Amino acid sequence: MVVVMKVGATPQEIEAVEQMVRKVGGAPHVVSGVLRSIVALVGDDERFLDLPLSTLPGVETVQRIGKPYKLVARELHQAPTSVRVGNATIGRESFALIAGPCAVETPRQALAAAEAAKAAGATILRGGAYKPRTSPYSFQGLGKPGLEILADCREATGLPVMTEVIEARDVEHVAAVADALQIGTRNSQNYALLSEVGRSGKPVLLKRGFSSTIEEWLMSAEYIAREGNANIILCERGIRTFEPMTRNTLDLAGMIVAQNESHLPVVVDPSHAAGRRDLVEPLARAALAAGADGVMIDVHDNPSEALCDGPQALLPDDLARLGAELAKLAQDLGRPMALPES
Amino acid sequence: MVVVMKVGATPQEIEAVEQMVRKVGGAPHVVSGVLRSIVALVGDDERFLDLPLSTLPGVETVQRIGKPYKLVARELHQAPTSVRVGNATIGRESFALIAGPCAVETPRQALAAAEAAKAAGATILRGGAYKPRTSPYSFQGLGKPGLEILADCREATGLPVMTEVIEARDVEHVAAVADALQIGTRNSQNYALLSEVGRSGKPVLLKRGFSSTIEEWLMSAEYIAREGNANIILCERGIRTFEPMTRNTLDLAGMIVAQNESHLPVVVDPSHAAGRRDLVEPLARAALAAGADGVMIDVHDNPSEALCDGPQALLPDDLARLGAELAKLAQDLGRPMALPES
Amino acid sequence: MVVVMKVGATPQEIEAVEQMVRKVGGAPHVVSGVLRSIVALVGDDERFLDLPLSTLPGVETVQRIGKPYKLVARELHQAPTSVRVGNATIGRESFALIAGPCAVETPRQALAAAEAAKAAGATILRGGAYKPRTSPYSFQGLGKPGLEILADCREATGLPVMTEVIEARDVEHVAAVADALQIGTRNSQNYALLSEVGRSGKPVLLKRGFSSTIEEWLMSAEYIAREGNANIILCERGIRTFEPMTRNTLDLAGMIVAQNESHLPVVVDPSHAAGRRDLVEPLARAALAAGADGVMIDVHDNPSEALCDGPQALLPDDLARLGAELAKLAQDLGRPMALPES
Amino acid sequence: MVVVMKVGATPQEIEAVEQMVRKVGGAPHVVSGVLRSIVALVGDDERFLDLPLSTLPGVETVQRIGKPYKLVARELHQAPTSVRVGNATIGRESFALIAGPCAVETPRQALAAAEAAKAAGATILRGGAYKPRTSPYSFQGLGKPGLEILADCREATGLPVMTEVIEARDVEHVAAVADALQIGTRNSQNYALLSEVGRSGKPVLLKRGFSSTIEEWLMSAEYIAREGNANIILCERGIRTFEPMTRNTLDLAGMIVAQNESHLPVVVDPSHAAGRRDLVEPLARAALAAGADGVMIDVHDNPSEALCDGPQALLPDDLARLGAELAKLAQDLGRPMALPES
Repeated sequence: MVVVMKVGATPQEIEAVEQMVRKVGGAPHVVSGVLRSIVALVGDDERFLDLPLSTLPGVETVQRIGKPYKLVARELHQAPTSVRVGNATIGRESFALIAGPCAVETPRQALAAAEAAKAAGATILRGGAYKPRTSPYSFQGLGKPGLEILADCREATGLPVMTEVIEARDVEHVAAVADALQIGTRNSQNYALLSEVGRSGKPVLLKRGFSSTIEEWLMSAEYIAREGNANIILCERGIRTFEPMTRNTLDLAGMIVAQNESHLPVVVDPSHAAGRRDLVEPLARAALAAGADGVMIDVHDNPSEALCDGPQALLPDDLARLGAELAKLAQDLGRPMALPES
Repeated sequence: MVVVMKVGATPQEIEAVEQMVRKVGGAPHVVSGVLRSIVALVGDDERFLDLPLSTLPGVETVQRIGKPYKLVARELHQAPTSVRVGNATIGRESFALIAGPCAVETPRQALAAAEAAKAAGATILRGGAYKPRTSPYSFQGLGKPGLEILADCREATGLPVMTEVIEARDVEHVAAVADALQIGTRNSQNYALLSEVGRSGKPVLLKRGFSSTIEEWLMSAEYIAREGNANIILCERGIRTFEPMTRNTLDLAGMIVAQNESHLPVVVDPSHAAGRRDLVEPLARAALAAGADGVMIDVHDNPSEALCDGPQALLPDDLARLGAELAKLAQDLGRPMALPES
Repeated sequence: MVVVMKVGATPQEIEAVEQMVRKVGGAPHVVSGVLRSIVALVGDDERFLDLPLSTLPGVETVQRIGKPYKLVARELHQAPTSVRVGNATIGRESFALIAGPCAVETPRQALAAAEAAKAAGATILRGGAYKPRTSPYSFQGLGKPGLEILADCREATGLPVMTEVIEARDVEHVAAVADALQIGTRNSQNYALLSEVGRSGKPVLLKRGFSSTIEEWLMSAEYIAREGNANIILCERGIRTFEPMTRNTLDLAGMIVAQNESHLPVVVDPSHAAGRRDLVEPLARAALAAGADGVMIDVHDNPSEALCDGPQALLPDDLARLGAELAKLAQDLGRPMALPES
Repeated sequence: MVVVMKVGATPQEIEAVEQMVRKVGGAPHVVSGVLRSIVALVGDDERFLDLPLSTLPGVETVQRIGKPYKLVARELHQAPTSVRVGNATIGRESFALIAGPCAVETPRQALAAAEAAKAAGATILRGGAYKPRTSPYSFQGLGKPGLEILADCREATGLPVMTEVIEARDVEHVAAVADALQIGTRNSQNYALLSEVGRSGKPVLLKRGFSSTIEEWLMSAEYIAREGNANIILCERGIRTFEPMTRNTLDLAGMIVAQNESHLPVVVDPSHAAGRRDLVEPLARAALAAGADGVMIDVHDNPSEALCDGPQALLPDDLARLGAELAKLAQDLGRPMALPES
């Protein structure tokens, strides 16, 4: 932490900063220039993080040094983590395809999507039984019956199931069915929910908030990890910008930075980022080429009847083609496609 | 809703759009130009909102007409709503000061802040017992004991209590103590929580998500209203932009638009928007001059020891001066300051 | 400047940073903690600003301390600057109204707008002869004949003329007519143009780029000041955000910060920020209440026939009412309205 | 264009809209629903684009249909355009590498970079003689002597030269030396400059403004095309967002949309987007995988002594490795690498 003093700050004001730091056990170093001084603190930021140093007279700004995340940080945990979801693994040694319906609508539709996912080479089935929707008048998901349908799809295809949970009090019963829990973009700073999925011990796919910085995203992961659950998969899904022609702006550089800053695997969701079917395929290829640990793709056998996000869903045939394309490209890039394990 | 067809869309493609619309009872009107055609639908958007029209071949874009919010919309409910919180009222006929500590830390600190609020002319006491914090290592609020301290402050000052709730399963016991519930910016799209506070029947102050459009903000209010609870106060508290010198960018135009689009009262929180004490006072004046229905201000008798957001808290004396200034300015602008009622 | 070393950086890597700094005459201070070290440099940042310190091995980040702007900075020039435009003054001792047509269209329209400005209490006439438009098919301004019309309006009303210049090679002939030059938002980082208006010696109103940080805005002012021209008026006119219901988001906190960071006067343009007539009046009041040094308002006697930005122009009667309202509010706030001087 | 009337708009108000449209030769169609009416206009938007319809009473919003760009639009010009720069071609049939120094600093440094570009397989040499810099105290480029150095580099390597022009009055002498002109991100809405490079007839690489929407970017291209110059290469280089860990956010989806909306080739500049060397390589691969028509990369043989953007420059060896990698990946993707032609 570096406390930048105002031009003309008095020795007493500098001394007050030093005192506040020493009070919590820090060792301040004052460096003085012609115009201004700074008080530098090197060490465990945690103790200083919440010190209201900027309220002291003579202080201009307080700049943090070091990272606020610890358990998920790569800095002190160099080896990348692989996360096991049922019989599948997500990690840096392979590239995984996660696919399935955006929302579970009917047993027939869900099974068709699950079979399309399986046929395209997916190792994990995604599908939503609880859907957070901007409008209260939109389809909100089937709830518990949707979970049962997902369990049937797992039975039929052998794919482990990843599904969203939107409320702390739902975690227990969703975790009873699902192989992995998903935290959606709008809940990425719902800390009560994060702590609860942390306590569940289940693998968690944590979407980046559409307006979260990378640091905030990692701090959300830290909430899960602090409960003793390091089975976290990060998922970049686009951020909100001023551009109206795409739903969100996919931040592939952010995905790479998250891989560098953290030891957790990072996958990409091009379907929700772009919101447009024609962009899903090129963005999925780009994610692989940029080094993502997997992609997550919506599929629907009849998008024109989808109750949720139809415009972005691939048809089963498109998904099959994309799966083959990704498998070939992964091989060309020297990275094998993830396969189901037993 | 207007479905814009691609240049060169075929009559069959236009017909398919018309059919999808008719199937749900809509009356499509085709308007054709030299280069392209559109299919216009005027009427109840609700039925059409989730139609995946953009998945049909030949469709370029689908543009919504009309507003997705209904219960909170001014369009069909011209008279502004006033919301009663304990013995206070928030609405367009007066300008209200809501003040108190950002977080309840100790009985002494909370009471000092509550008395400062009262002395400055506030009619509602704010104060957080549950604090959603970016870092799991930061102070998370006192929880239930914090609620008791707030109840004591109400006893001592006569001010009704507004406090944040961060989880659906907390609503019941928080509502048992509080006069009004607050939904924070990070939970503004936590729809499970919104529905729950809706069902509680308690007045709700709904902060705008720091990355929510005005429309999304009003849709969040719609979630509360749909449960039969129209006692909603909207609160503009700054949006996330690229500017790093302030924490967020206070959107006063957004506050005005929210007043025009909705019949609900809209207040402004300059403390959290700016994150800097020196900006609180001028932004509070600006909010009043722009027509806000109130402001919400943090106060702390010793910001240098605050456990949360010290840099933005006013001192009791500053708050007293601001309260007097706002009362005078409100009068000058022909709008009385809200007073406690009996 | 603080160079933050990576965890595990070697003594040699730290030494290399020190050497690069010493080479340009800096005095580095190393502060070492348990996990990492930093190299602090306090002093004239200018010499260090372009040092590619972050390219050295072992360096994690380089954080600047101190401000990159000098001539326009308040830090070393505490007294606020007043800028004289013809017989008018813009500065912190009064609140000025600048008004006129967005674009000069015809002699009649321009004169009607100028007279409306005068009648409403404006002390400076704004009006564009050169208009930078997003579309090449939109009206681009009258050019030189527009300047002549503006000179006629000055003759008729006695108001000094402020007009936009969009190209370095136009500066000379525009400056021959205008009392003050305006740099528009899209040219706010057109450094060739900034230097040229600096050399002209004329007062310059510098709009904030719609995506410029406050720091970049002040650095653009620095380009003008470096040519020996400190007659600069800053103008906040809204920044680009994700919100679609208003054209841009007026950043009043940014206006205040610019006043604190710089000794230059700062005015606000609510017309272009909001792009909607109904927001102009409340935002102008808010700008005054927040402490702006003036506002700039579009007026048109027949907005439905305006060739540019009709939707945001006030009618002459509306402007008169707003002018009276601002004069009263200024007085209530203890700040006189600027008057023409002789 | 669709004019959405307010709920309760009168027949007279609707009639006034129809009249304004008919006056410029449009054919309005009124579609009325239970709550509101719309007036639809299908046809040439150009005539209606500047009609101030939203100023009329009873009008709620005006929504555009159709695209404001014409000459650069794919809609009416399906075949993709290839642009010839000296003996090189940029277009959809191959993938091009453009490389060179960010800024020309010395003859030695520029030649080393040019040779590194050539060795890595680049077909076009980039290099700046005029540098727009945020600070007036930063290196501003060598100017004319820099152009001569670039000409010498062309002589030595055979690579055609692409260089930035920052002012309309420089176009003539820069065009006398350069094979292609570059418009930088800060000048992307400098319409005087765009028109001037249009008139020069030279190929132009047009960077997206860091805060331009795709539509604004294409409108800037339209300014060039309207002067009869369709030799335009679009360049995506990142947009400004709230994320501080990267300089800008590379918008690969925006690149794809630009390719779909326009017939012009679109390349990607990962160096300036990310501002960090470690991101250049994966983002360049991602750009290729997403279908970009080329990438533009900074190279410097001693980044620690670079006068401009050292942190993002690749070393010659890194560039050679990246060039080989891109060539292999291009082949794997069925798209050949662009080669110099004679």
